Amino acid sequence: MNNPFFKNHGPFKIMDLFKDIKFDDINISPDDDILDIKDLISSNKNHLTFFHSKKYHLAASKTKASYCVTYKNLSNYLPVECKAIFVDNVLLATSKITSKFYPDAINDDFDNTVKKIEEITFKNKIQYGHNVLVGSNVSIGANCLIGHNTIIEKNVSIGSNCSIGSNVIIRNTIIEDDVHILDGCIIGKKGFGFFPKNKKNLRYPHIGIVYIGKNSEIGSGTTIDRGSMSNTVIGENTFLDNQIHIAHNNKIGDNCIIAGQVGFAGSSTVGNNVMIGGQAGISGHLKIGSNVQIGGGSGVIKNIPDNSKVMGYPSKDLRQFLKENK
Amino acid sequence: MNNPFFKNHGPFKIMDLFKDIKFDDINISPDDDILDIKDLISSNKNHLTFFHSKKYHLAASKTKASYCVTYKNLSNYLPVECKAIFVDNVLLATSKITSKFYPDAINDDFDNTVKKIEEITFKNKIQYGHNVLVGSNVSIGANCLIGHNTIIEKNVSIGSNCSIGSNVIIRNTIIEDDVHILDGCIIGKKGFGFFPKNKKNLRYPHIGIVYIGKNSEIGSGTTIDRGSMSNTVIGENTFLDNQIHIAHNNKIGDNCIIAGQVGFAGSSTVGNNVMIGGQAGISGHLKIGSNVQIGGGSGVIKNIPDNSKVMGYPSKDLRQFLKENK
Amino acid sequence: MNNPFFKNHGPFKIMDLFKDIKFDDINISPDDDILDIKDLISSNKNHLTFFHSKKYHLAASKTKASYCVTYKNLSNYLPVECKAIFVDNVLLATSKITSKFYPDAINDDFDNTVKKIEEITFKNKIQYGHNVLVGSNVSIGANCLIGHNTIIEKNVSIGSNCSIGSNVIIRNTIIEDDVHILDGCIIGKKGFGFFPKNKKNLRYPHIGIVYIGKNSEIGSGTTIDRGSMSNTVIGENTFLDNQIHIAHNNKIGDNCIIAGQVGFAGSSTVGNNVMIGGQAGISGHLKIGSNVQIGGGSGVIKNIPDNSKVMGYPSKDLRQFLKENK
Repeated sequence: MNNPFFKNHGPFKIMDLFKDIKFDDINISPDDDILDIKDLISSNKNHLTFFHSKKYHLAASKTKASYCVTYKNLSNYLPVECKAIFVDNVLLATSKITSKFYPDAINDDFDNTVKKIEEITFKNKIQYGHNVLVGSNVSIGANCLIGHNTIIEKNVSIGSNCSIGSNVIIRNTIIEDDVHILDGCIIGKKGFGFFPKNKKNLRYPHIGIVYIGKNSEIGSGTTIDRGSMSNTVIGENTFLDNQIHIAHNNKIGDNCIIAGQVGFAGSSTVGNNVMIGGQAGISGHLKIGSNVQIGGGSGVIKNIPDNSKVMGYPSKDLRQFLKENK
Repeated sequence: MNNPFFKNHGPFKIMDLFKDIKFDDINISPDDDILDIKDLISSNKNHLTFFHSKKYHLAASKTKASYCVTYKNLSNYLPVECKAIFVDNVLLATSKITSKFYPDAINDDFDNTVKKIEEITFKNKIQYGHNVLVGSNVSIGANCLIGHNTIIEKNVSIGSNCSIGSNVIIRNTIIEDDVHILDGCIIGKKGFGFFPKNKKNLRYPHIGIVYIGKNSEIGSGTTIDRGSMSNTVIGENTFLDNQIHIAHNNKIGDNCIIAGQVGFAGSSTVGNNVMIGGQAGISGHLKIGSNVQIGGGSGVIKNIPDNSKVMGYPSKDLRQFLKENK
Repeated sequence: MNNPFFKNHGPFKIMDLFKDIKFDDINISPDDDILDIKDLISSNKNHLTFFHSKKYHLAASKTKASYCVTYKNLSNYLPVECKAIFVDNVLLATSKITSKFYPDAINDDFDNTVKKIEEITFKNKIQYGHNVLVGSNVSIGANCLIGHNTIIEKNVSIGSNCSIGSNVIIRNTIIEDDVHILDGCIIGKKGFGFFPKNKKNLRYPHIGIVYIGKNSEIGSGTTIDRGSMSNTVIGENTFLDNQIHIAHNNKIGDNCIIAGQVGFAGSSTVGNNVMIGGQAGISGHLKIGSNVQIGGGSGVIKNIPDNSKVMGYPSKDLRQFLKENK
C-alpha cells in the first residue's frame, strides 16, 4: 500500500539517475530501466532501494530490490541478486532520485484542484457544512459528515460513517470506516524532513501517506504528517486527544489511548493497547511494545518492551520513578 | 448551572433504565420516575446519581438524590433517603443511563443548524467578519466583535463587549462580558472521555458546558473541552496564552495567568491568583490552591496547598528544585 | 525597522504624557515635544525611552534618547544628554505612554479592513485559493501561492516565491522571499504581555512586528507572536516544525532547525545553526549561542554558550545528562 497517490514519473534509465557514477559492478548496464524507488522491505524486481545504516542489515539481507544505493562497507549484507551502487551520501542520493520519480511530493503548496463540494457528485449520501472544498481523487463513503470550512485536498479516501469536524485539512490520507476527526486537525502534510544545507535546506519528497484504521478518533487541533518513504499509520480503535503531533513514518497500533499534547518525533513503532499520558514525548526510530503504559510528561528515548509501565524524563520503570520521587 | 443546553429526554421509569436488575431494596418500585441524572453534589429529589469510589464518600453522605448507582461496599455512606441500586460497573451504567437522558451529548458532529450570520437578527449591535456562521440557541451581547470564518455553533451565550477572533469554533459555552478569545480556539467540544473497549471504545455523553468568566482572555490555538457530568470553568480575569489545552471538568479560578502550551489532564481544581509557566502539565483530579506559582515545564501529580511555589517533574518545592539543580 | 506598521499618534508634549509629575530636572520643559517612544537602543533625539532594571545599564549608558522614564537609583547610568523622568513604576508608565502613541496596538480585534482577494489588484502574479481575505497595507511578491480560507490581515509584506498554506492568519509581519508557511499558522498577533491587576489586567500595546527571513519554513499550527517594543525575528533558512509557539520578542538566528511542539517564553535570543529537539522549552530573556544543540524535552532556564550540547530539565551538558541517566 506504499504509494497509491503520487504519480510515478518513471521508469528511468540508470544512466539518467546516476550521471556521474562509474559503476563497479559489471552486471549493471547504464541502459537498465528502474521502475520505482522504495524502502528495503517494499522493494521488488527492477526497483531501486537504499541502505544507509548497519542497523537495517536484516531488512537489507532480505530485500527483493534489483538495485541498492549504499556504502561499500554495507554492500556485503545485500543478497547477490541486488546490485549495489555506491554514492558519497546515501540519503542525499535517495532524496534526489525520489524527487525525480515523484516531483509532486516535495512541496505542499495549497491544492488548486479543489472545488466547492456542491459542484461534485458523490455516489453516497453525504452531509456537509458550509464552505467545504474537495480536491481531485477523493472518495467519501456513505453516511459521512463533513464540517464547515473543511478542505479535503487531493488524494483522500474516506470510509463510511465517518464524522469529520470543521476547519479540518486532509490530504494524501486513507481513512477507514467509523473514524471521527475533530475540529482543526491537519492530516497528511509532508513531514519535517529535509537535508540541512547552509543558506538553503534541501527538501526531500514525502511519498508516503497517512493511514487511519477504523473506529479511531483524532482530537481537535492534532497534526499527523504523512510518511517519507513509508507511511504514517494510526491503528484501529485508537483514540488521540487534542493537540497531538504525530510526525512522519510513525506506526501506532490498535486500541491505543493517547492523551493531549503528546508528541512523536518520527519513524517510531507503537504496539497495541498502549496508553500514553499527556505531554509525553516519543523520540524517533524507537520500538514501543504492546500493552505499554507511558506516564504523562515522560520523555521516551529508548525502546520499551511489551507490558512495561514507564515514567520520567528520560523514562524509566514506573515503580522506580515513583520510588525515587516520593 | 449544570445543564442549560442539552435536552433532557427524561423522565424515565426505573424499569426502563435498569432492565436486567433485580432490586434488593424493597423501597424501589420499577414504576418510579427518574427526572434526571446528576453528580452527587448537584442531585436533588427524584434524581439519579452515581458513586463509584470511596474517595467521594463525603459528597455521597450529603447527596440529595433519591437513587444512586453504586457498589454494595459503598452503599453504607449514602443517606437513608437515597436508595442504592447495585451494578457491576458504576461508570459504565452511568454512561449508558446518561446517554438515554441526553443522546445529543455523545457525538460532536458538525452543527448543521448554523446559518450565515447575515441571515440572523440580533437584538444588539454586533460587528462581524466574512463567512461567520451561527447555530441555534445562540445569544450575543452588545458591542461584540466576531472574526472571519468563525463558527458559533449551537448553545452559546456570549456577553457584552467580547472580542472573538477569526477561525474560532465555539459550542456549548457561556462567555461573560469583556472576554477576548483569540484566533483559532476550539471551545466546548466533548472531552476525551470514553470507556476503553477492544475493537470499539464506548463514548459517553458530555452534558457539561464551558463557562468563561468576565474579563478573561484565551490565547490563539487553545482548546477547552466541555465537562462530562460537571462543567469546565475558567474564572474571571484569568488569562491563557497560546496553544493551551484545558481538558474536561477542570475548574480554574480568578486572576490566574497561564503561559503557552500548558496542559490540564482533566477534573482538577485551581484556586485564584495562580501563575503557571509554559509547558507545565497538571494531572487529573488534583486540587491546586490559591496564590500558587508553578514553574515552566513542571509536571504536577500531587495536590498543591495555597501560597506554594513549585517546579520540577514531578513538581516539588521551588527552592528545593533550584538547590538540587544549581 | 522597529515600527513600520502602527500609526504614531504623536508628537505629544511632556506635560500631556506626565500629568502628575513635578520634574526634578530643571532642563525639562513641560512644553517640549516628544516624537516617539522606543527602547534604549533604538531611541534617538526627541524620543522617550525607558530603563527599569540595572541589567540593561550598558544599553542605557549609550542611549541617544532625549528623555528616559526610570528610577532615581538608575539615573546615573544615563548619558548627560538624556534627561531622567522618575516614576513609581517604569513599565506601567511606559505602557500607558506607549498606548497613547500607538492606541491601535493594544487589542487584536479581527481586521475589518479585509476584502476578498478577488477584489484587489496586485502588481504581481499571485495564485490563490477559495475564500482568501486580504487587509489594507498588504504587499505580496511575484509567484506567491496563498491557500484556501487564509486571512492576510493588515500590515503584511510578503516577498516573492512564497507558499502560504490554508487556514493561515497573518498580520503585522514582514516575510522575505522563498518562505513557506504551512497550514493553520497564526502569525503576528500581540504577545502574552500585560500588567496583572486584580479584577482586570491591563493590556499593553505590542508595537513590534514579526520578521521572517528568506528560505525559512514554518510548520503547521505554529503560532508566532509579534514583539512588544522590539520585534520577533525568525532568521534565514530556519525551519520550524508543527505546533511550535514563539512568544513575543524572541530573536532566532539563521539555519536553525526546531522540532515539533517546542515553546519559547519570550525575549530570548538564539544564534545561528541551532538545533532544538521536540517539546523543548526555552525560558524568557535568555541568550542561546550559535551551533548549540538542545535535546528534545529539555527545559532551558540559563544562557547557553556557543557550540554547546545540552539536554535535561533543567538542561545541562549532554554528556553529563546521558551519564546520569544511563
